[in-house]
Amino acid sequence: MSPEEFRQHGHRVIDWIAEYLTNPSAHPVLARTRPGEVAAALPSSPPTDGEEFDAILQDLDDILLPGITHWNHPAFFAYFGISGSMPGILAEAIAAALNVNAMLWRTSPAATELEEVAVDWLRQLLGLPNDFRGHIQDTASTSTLVALASAREATGLDIRERGLAGRDVPPLRVYCSEEAHSSVEKAAITLGIGRESVRKIRTDDEFRMIPRALEEAIEIDRSAGDRPFCIVATLGTTSTTSVDPLPQLAAVARRFGLWLHVDAAYGGAAAVVPEIRDVTRGWEQADSIVVNPHKWLFVPIDCSTLFLRDPEITRRAFTLVPDYLQTPQGESVTNLMDYGHALGRRFRALKLWTTLRYFGESGLAARLREHIDLARAFAADVRRDPDWRVEAPVPFSTVCFRFTPPGLGDADTDALNERILEAVNATGEVFLSHTRLNGRYTLRLAVGNIRTEAGHVRDAWRLLRDAARNEQPRQ
Amino acid sequence: MSPEEFRQHGHRVIDWIAEYLTNPSAHPVLARTRPGEVAAALPSSPPTDGEEFDAILQDLDDILLPGITHWNHPAFFAYFGISGSMPGILAEAIAAALNVNAMLWRTSPAATELEEVAVDWLRQLLGLPNDFRGHIQDTASTSTLVALASAREATGLDIRERGLAGRDVPPLRVYCSEEAHSSVEKAAITLGIGRESVRKIRTDDEFRMIPRALEEAIEIDRSAGDRPFCIVATLGTTSTTSVDPLPQLAAVARRFGLWLHVDAAYGGAAAVVPEIRDVTRGWEQADSIVVNPHKWLFVPIDCSTLFLRDPEITRRAFTLVPDYLQTPQGESVTNLMDYGHALGRRFRALKLWTTLRYFGESGLAARLREHIDLARAFAADVRRDPDWRVEAPVPFSTVCFRFTPPGLGDADTDALNERILEAVNATGEVFLSHTRLNGRYTLRLAVGNIRTEAGHVRDAWRLLRDAARNEQPRQ
Repeated sequence: MSPEEFRQHGHRVIDWIAEYLTNPSAHPVLARTRPGEVAAALPSSPPTDGEEFDAILQDLDDILLPGITHWNHPAFFAYFGISGSMPGILAEAIAAALNVNAMLWRTSPAATELEEVAVDWLRQLLGLPNDFRGHIQDTASTSTLVALASAREATGLDIRERGLAGRDVPPLRVYCSEEAHSSVEKAAITLGIGRESVRKIRTDDEFRMIPRALEEAIEIDRSAGDRPFCIVATLGTTSTTSVDPLPQLAAVARRFGLWLHVDAAYGGAAAVVPEIRDVTRGWEQADSIVVNPHKWLFVPIDCSTLFLRDPEITRRAFTLVPDYLQTPQGESVTNLMDYGHALGRRFRALKLWTTLRYFGESGLAARLREHIDLARAFAADVRRDPDWRVEAPVPFSTVCFRFTPPGLGDADTDALNERILEAVNATGEVFLSHTRLNGRYTLRLAVGNIRTEAGHVRDAWRLLRDAARNEQPRQ
Repeated sequence: MSPEEFRQHGHRVIDWIAEYLTNPSAHPVLARTRPGEVAAALPSSPPTDGEEFDAILQDLDDILLPGITHWNHPAFFAYFGISGSMPGILAEAIAAALNVNAMLWRTSPAATELEEVAVDWLRQLLGLPNDFRGHIQDTASTSTLVALASAREATGLDIRERGLAGRDVPPLRVYCSEEAHSSVEKAAITLGIGRESVRKIRTDDEFRMIPRALEEAIEIDRSAGDRPFCIVATLGTTSTTSVDPLPQLAAVARRFGLWLHVDAAYGGAAAVVPEIRDVTRGWEQADSIVVNPHKWLFVPIDCSTLFLRDPEITRRAFTLVPDYLQTPQGESVTNLMDYGHALGRRFRALKLWTTLRYFGESGLAARLREHIDLARAFAADVRRDPDWRVEAPVPFSTVCFRFTPPGLGDADTDALNERILEAVNATGEVFLSHTRLNGRYTLRLAVGNIRTEAGHVRDAWRLLRDAARNEQPRQ
């Protein structure tokens, strides 16, 4: 492709994106395609000769777009809503063009130093003390994996070199609440610690880890000769966005000499809002914290930041410098490949930096505040209707609720809520997801998209009530 | 940002990229910035109020660009040259705009199905049998981590659930050559297997693993009660791009019942060239193979494909489906989150598919063939000069060589070559890297950039000889 052709195709792509983002509501939120339909519409073999770029763009419209679930849709309320803001999208295009691999400082000093600066900016926006140093990983799953690997390294058992098997190492145990994200278990599986070693601690009636239950679990494991090594607290659980009691959990971690990792992948962003920040109290005592700018800070996926109190432990856990990666700068510079399992690294800092600059602290806070207000207004609507219940507190922008008409047993209520969810999602006008709370099928509305306005939330509420009317069991 | 503003800024960004890529040689290949210089030029705190996008673009030019090491430069010969082709860059912009998370089929059916189709296209281009199924990871490090986790799962020791510690599990051992990539050790560290468990097998005089030495090592470990579980063969080692004897290693794997993983992150791409493909003979017997389209197939970083003979083992190793991720489609569809540790997934398939379509099989093969020819021509030049030596065979597009004037001891020759490398890199006209072969400091020239032409390679050779003349020890 010549630069002139790139210019032409590029302008077309920009126009395509501008049009797409002008009105993402033109598409059903949730893709209506049937399994296999997209694949069947594509040739089963690659072309022998190159094709025109225009033909590729045409297939994007004709074949791919109908199979896209539109995370950009302002009524995307499922899981956690995310937004790739426009400045972030442009930064991604530039990063793809620069195409640097920031494995070593030397292989692109600006990529490494911008990552240090942008992540430190984020640290300041979040009000974290300046003894935390952070870097970027792809996802919170990887950040938590790296955090747990660091906690494992901090045991001093030399697991890095000698491994866990065939030697006198007791089972390592990690503690999180029963509401913690599945990435904690996945990290334990990956690290050879084992899923059973993840002790899921009971939660209170607001879905927060019970410190006393945590202490008991640690004591039982210690008595059995096991080796507790890490507590994972959650600041904004996936189901209900509950916040574990961080100051108390930090005290437990200190008392037993355990690593404290805080999973604030979603909730941490709220610290940008001054009047909300208090909810994070205690996280400054953590050893590691994950916050995902691609979740609720308008950075395109993927961008997860991992803050470490002592990055040297993480470096010790992972660093390996073969001859061919030794540089004249040696250890006088940060080589980001040393802080995780992956050698190659995209220039993700560019989109984080661009987004923080474009919105500024006040712009980010305003948008988050609005999302929180929208969620609380929705919760108020739900509470006003006697046939509906809000099932958990709303500390951030996510509401858990269900339809609970009188005279219906638990199983029937579950089935009814499931049908309601399918019905509203089938309209294509909104997309919500579900969870289970105390075993009960529960609906969830999470506000996180930069285009969401009060009308979208009101529409969701209207569609839910319509569906509840239509789906009520025949008497 | 309004769509209209996005259009304006977007066109400017496209023009910026077009101009940058018209002549990447306008910049020194290797950034000349001093450590800390980029960071010092940036504000130490984030802005309170949002800034203009134009100001960000201005800083890109003024502050960041001088700190970029230009992987796009046609004389980037270090490590492995890579290229984010123009169609791939545009696809990345579209993926950032769509901003889907392809964790579940449902959360963007087209992203999942396009990944299955595009990776299968690649499988066909590489001539792999159709019993391999692949998916995309970020980097080869992650692909190898997932492969080794799958091999660990295949032992049937239920390490996923029960972990490795505090039970009767012998040390697991994994075998690779002493020339294998550091990601094998990093995977062993991460997985709790331990770095010591990576048995580095001796290589022959062409830097290929010696099958007999491998068998001996396995037998010694078995006699000691250890548990060999995996062989990692390399198709294109990092230093010399040597190819381990795959058919013999596959026979050893079969004989001992071990998993065979083939690291073809760089070399695998060469299978697209019909007259070169024979070099991959034997890889069709592997259990898993990693090939990186972001390395030598013109896809912007990051895009690593992992081919699996039995993806069900990998799924068993990693799958965990919390209530909130259960979908009406259940297991009738592929949910890509099940095939690794990370939940979130970017829409990486779009750039792979776009690149394969734009170039087609013949276009890719032509470019790879040219790179191979350029490297062989360079090796021929080096061989013709009696003061220089080519230090390893050249199966692909990478040449290992050094300056070996008569009468100089090994240590002095090492130091001299190091000075030569620093001198040519300081010109800003080329960027080469080094390695050590049999303990000797060796220079490396790797051709992999889509813009590299014969003149760039000739220039490198001229600069090297000039530097050798200037850097010769004073008599």
